[in-house]
Amino acid sequence: MVAKNLLKQVYHDSLALLTDLYELTMAYAYWKNGMQDREAVFQLFFRKYPFGGAYAICAGMEVALEYIENFGFEDDDLAYLAQLKNPAGKPLFEGAFLEYLKDFRLSVDVDAMEEGTPVFPYEPLIRVQGPIIQAQILESALLNILNFQTLIATKASRVCYAAKGDHIVEFGLRRAQGIDGAIAASRASFIGGCHSSSNVLAGKLFGIPVMGTHAHSFVMTFDEEENAFRTFAKALPENCVFLIDTYDSLKGVERGIKVAKEEGLKLIAVRLDSGDLNVLSNKVRKMLDEAGLKETKIMATNELTEQIISDLKHQGGKISLWGVGTNLVTAKDQPALDGVYKLSAVQGKDKEWKYRLKISEQVIKTTNPGISQVRRYFDEKGYVADMFYDEKMGPGKTIIHHTEPGSKKEVKENWQYKDLLIPMLRRGKRVYESPSLVQMRDKTYEELEKFPDAMRRFLNPQLFFTGIEKNLYDLKLQMIEEIRCKL
Amino acid sequence: MVAKNLLKQVYHDSLALLTDLYELTMAYAYWKNGMQDREAVFQLFFRKYPFGGAYAICAGMEVALEYIENFGFEDDDLAYLAQLKNPAGKPLFEGAFLEYLKDFRLSVDVDAMEEGTPVFPYEPLIRVQGPIIQAQILESALLNILNFQTLIATKASRVCYAAKGDHIVEFGLRRAQGIDGAIAASRASFIGGCHSSSNVLAGKLFGIPVMGTHAHSFVMTFDEEENAFRTFAKALPENCVFLIDTYDSLKGVERGIKVAKEEGLKLIAVRLDSGDLNVLSNKVRKMLDEAGLKETKIMATNELTEQIISDLKHQGGKISLWGVGTNLVTAKDQPALDGVYKLSAVQGKDKEWKYRLKISEQVIKTTNPGISQVRRYFDEKGYVADMFYDEKMGPGKTIIHHTEPGSKKEVKENWQYKDLLIPMLRRGKRVYESPSLVQMRDKTYEELEKFPDAMRRFLNPQLFFTGIEKNLYDLKLQMIEEIRCKL
Repeated sequence: MVAKNLLKQVYHDSLALLTDLYELTMAYAYWKNGMQDREAVFQLFFRKYPFGGAYAICAGMEVALEYIENFGFEDDDLAYLAQLKNPAGKPLFEGAFLEYLKDFRLSVDVDAMEEGTPVFPYEPLIRVQGPIIQAQILESALLNILNFQTLIATKASRVCYAAKGDHIVEFGLRRAQGIDGAIAASRASFIGGCHSSSNVLAGKLFGIPVMGTHAHSFVMTFDEEENAFRTFAKALPENCVFLIDTYDSLKGVERGIKVAKEEGLKLIAVRLDSGDLNVLSNKVRKMLDEAGLKETKIMATNELTEQIISDLKHQGGKISLWGVGTNLVTAKDQPALDGVYKLSAVQGKDKEWKYRLKISEQVIKTTNPGISQVRRYFDEKGYVADMFYDEKMGPGKTIIHHTEPGSKKEVKENWQYKDLLIPMLRRGKRVYESPSLVQMRDKTYEELEKFPDAMRRFLNPQLFFTGIEKNLYDLKLQMIEEIRCKL
Repeated sequence: MVAKNLLKQVYHDSLALLTDLYELTMAYAYWKNGMQDREAVFQLFFRKYPFGGAYAICAGMEVALEYIENFGFEDDDLAYLAQLKNPAGKPLFEGAFLEYLKDFRLSVDVDAMEEGTPVFPYEPLIRVQGPIIQAQILESALLNILNFQTLIATKASRVCYAAKGDHIVEFGLRRAQGIDGAIAASRASFIGGCHSSSNVLAGKLFGIPVMGTHAHSFVMTFDEEENAFRTFAKALPENCVFLIDTYDSLKGVERGIKVAKEEGLKLIAVRLDSGDLNVLSNKVRKMLDEAGLKETKIMATNELTEQIISDLKHQGGKISLWGVGTNLVTAKDQPALDGVYKLSAVQGKDKEWKYRLKISEQVIKTTNPGISQVRRYFDEKGYVADMFYDEKMGPGKTIIHHTEPGSKKEVKENWQYKDLLIPMLRRGKRVYESPSLVQMRDKTYEELEKFPDAMRRFLNPQLFFTGIEKNLYDLKLQMIEEIRCKL
C-alpha cells in the first residue's frame, strides 16, 4: 500500500531546486575551496514539544528518502541557475560549477527513525553523513518534508486519543496550506492514527480509505430537503450519510428518517455540522433509536479540535464518527514544528573527526555534537528512558536529562533497548524498505501504548525521561568552555 | 514573468482527484437523477478579517484558472474510482458514470477578482456559473488554492507595511506546510508585497528574485569564524552577506569587517539571527560605520512577525533588510482563511433562476443569494464603499452594511466605480490574461494606497464600509422568512 516514487508521481519537475539559495551558495563556496568532499554529519531535530504535549510522531521519512534518491539537477534547473546574477550584475555561479552540478548525485548515508515512532525534543529524526556539499544541500528540503509531516502526525495522534477509538475522517483539503499541504497532511494524519480521508487524491496515491457524502449545497439545490435526501438515497442507497443541519438539525433528522424508512435504506450516519453537538447528538440519537435506526451513527464536524472532541466525550455526546479538518491539517494552534538541521561533526583534512556544536546563551539551546544515536530503554512494563549517545563513544551507564542537568538516570541491569536510528541509505542506496502506511499507523498506536498514558494527557502531560549519555555530556560542556574561551 | 501552466509544471498527475469525495458522490447523484446540466451559481468568500486586520489581498487566481482549464480525469484516475467500494462492498460508482467522466471537461463561466485586489468579508473572490455538476465539483480545489494564497498575500502585505518600504525576503521553505505550502507561499508572498525569496524553485517557476548567503553550519565547518568568512568571500566576493551570530554577534561583525577590508569586499550586509535585534543592530551599525562600511546593510532574521518588525522600527533598530519565514508562510497566528463556496442560485427545470441562501441562526452568517457582483466606489480622495449587488437586479442607490444592518450609505452623485468581478472564463475558455507577478504586486501596493491608512493599522484598524445593495438585502430577508416559515 506504500506509494512508490511519490514525488515523481505528484511532481513532474526535479525537486533539486526545492531549496534555499544559501544551500547553493554554500555548496559553491565549498566547491571553490576544494572542500566539497569532506565528510560531515548533520542531524535534524526539534526543540519544543508541539501543542503543549509531551511527544511527537515521526512522519515523512519515506518522502524524504525518495527526495534524496531522486536528487539531481535537470537541464532547465541548470539553465535557471546559469542566468542568476550577483548584486554586481555578474553571474552568481561560474560555468564550471554548473558543469559539476550536472552529474551531481547524492551518496550519503542516512540513519533515521521509522515513521510512526514517538520522538522527543533534541532526538534526531534523521542523521545524514556524507560529503559536506551533499549533506548540507539537503537541509531545506528535509526540514520542509519532515517538520510538516511530523507535526501533522502528532496532531492526528492527539485527535485520535481524544476520540477513544472512534473513527476519525481527515477532512482538511479545503483549508490546507496549498495542494501538498493537503496531500502530505492526509498522509501524515493517517500515520498519526486517522482512519480515512475526504481527499480522493490522497486515497489514490497512498491507498488511504476515502469517505464523503454531500454538502449543504446539495440540499439547497432542491426546493425541499426531503427531495434532496431522496435523490441522494436513490443514487447511493448503500452509502448514505445525510447532512441534517442545512435548515434545522431536528427537522433534518426527521426527514432523513422518513426517507430512510421509505427507501428501505441502511442509513450509515447522519451528520451534524453546527449547533450544540452534545445536546443535538443526544436528541438525534433518541430519534434514531425510536425509529429503529439503532445502527445509524452520528457524525460530527465543525472546527473540531482534540479538546472539543475530548470535551464532547466527557459530556456524553452521542457521536461516534468525527470529521476533523482545518485544526488537524494546519495544526492550527501551532502550525510549524521548530525542527532544525545542524552540523554535528566534520572531518578535517586528515580525515579525523572534529565534533561541532552551535553554542547559545542557554546551554539547553546548544546543539549536541557527534555521530548521534538514540537508544530507547524498556523493561517489562514499557519504555523507561531514552539515551542520546555518540556512536563512536558508545552508550554509557548514566543519562543526564536534556534540559534539567540535575536530573539523571542510571541504566539498570534488567533494561532492554533498541536503537531508533536505523540505516536507511548507504552511500545513497536503499538498505531499508518502508512498511505500508497501515503498518506505520499500527506502529504509532502500538508504540504509544508502551508509554505511560499520562504522557498523552492534553493538560500538564507527564514528560518521558530523555537525556544525553554522560560522557558525551561532559565532552559537550568542555567544548562549550573551549569555544567561550576563544571568543 | 507569469508562470504558464504552473500546475502542469509542478504536478505531473492530473489534479481532478484533488477533491473531497463528496464532490464526486454529489456529482453521481446529480447525474443519476439527470440533473447534472442544470445551471447553477456558486460564490467563494470568507467571513472573518484575517489577523485581526481590516482587509485581505486576493491571490491564487491564475492557479485556480489553470486548474479549471486543465481539469480532466485520466485513465488511472478512473481506474482508481472504479475500484472504490461502498460500505456494502459493492462498487461506489456504476460504470456508466465513469464513462461519463472520461470526457468530462469544464465549460463554466468564471468571474473573479484580479490577484492583488484588496477584498473584504462576504465579497466573492470568484463566482462560478455553469452546469451544477461542474460548478460543484470545483469546490474543494478552489477553496484549497484561493484560501491559502489569499491568506499569505494578506500576511505579506502586513509584514511589508510594518517594514515601511524595506526589502523583505521570504524565507519560509523549511517550516512551510509541505512542498506546495512553500511554493504557493512564495508566490503569494510576492504578490502581497515581498521583494525576494530564498526558495530557488519559486524563483525558477515564477521569476521571483532569489536571495541567500550562508548558514551557521558553514561557519562551524571551519575551526575559525574568520576563515569561514574568508572562504565564502573568496568564492562569492560580490554576494557577501555574513551571518555574524554563530558565536557572538559583536565578535562576528569585527571578523566580518576584517575580512571585508582585507579582501576588498563590497560587503552587502551582515545578518543578525539572535539576541536583542535593536541593541545589537545599533552597535553593529556603529562598528560598520566606523570601519567605513556605511553601505553595508544590517539584515535581521529570527521568528519575525509584522508586530516585531514594527516594534523594531519604532525603537530605532538599524535594520533595513528583513528575512521573514515561518510566521509569514504558515500565517502562524491564523493559519487558515475561513473561505467557503456556497450555492447562490440554481435554475429549475423551466430554466428560471431560483435564488438560494444558506440560513443560520445569525443573519450575518446567512449567505447572500443571487448572481453576485461587487462594485467599488471611489471619489477623488480614494475608495469610499463597496456594494455587493445582484447582476440581475442591478446596483441600487443604498448600501446596507454587511454586519450592522442599521448602518447604511447612499451612493453619491460624484462617486465613480469599478466592478471587481471580471470575466475570466466563458464556457471554460480564457477571456482574461493574468498580468505578471510584478504587476500583481504593484496592484497590491497601488490599491492599498487608495484606502485610508488607518485601515492598515495592526491594532483596531478602521473598517472600510462594505455592504449589500438594499433591494437584494430586502429579498434576502424575505427569503429567510420564507425558509423559517417552512421549517
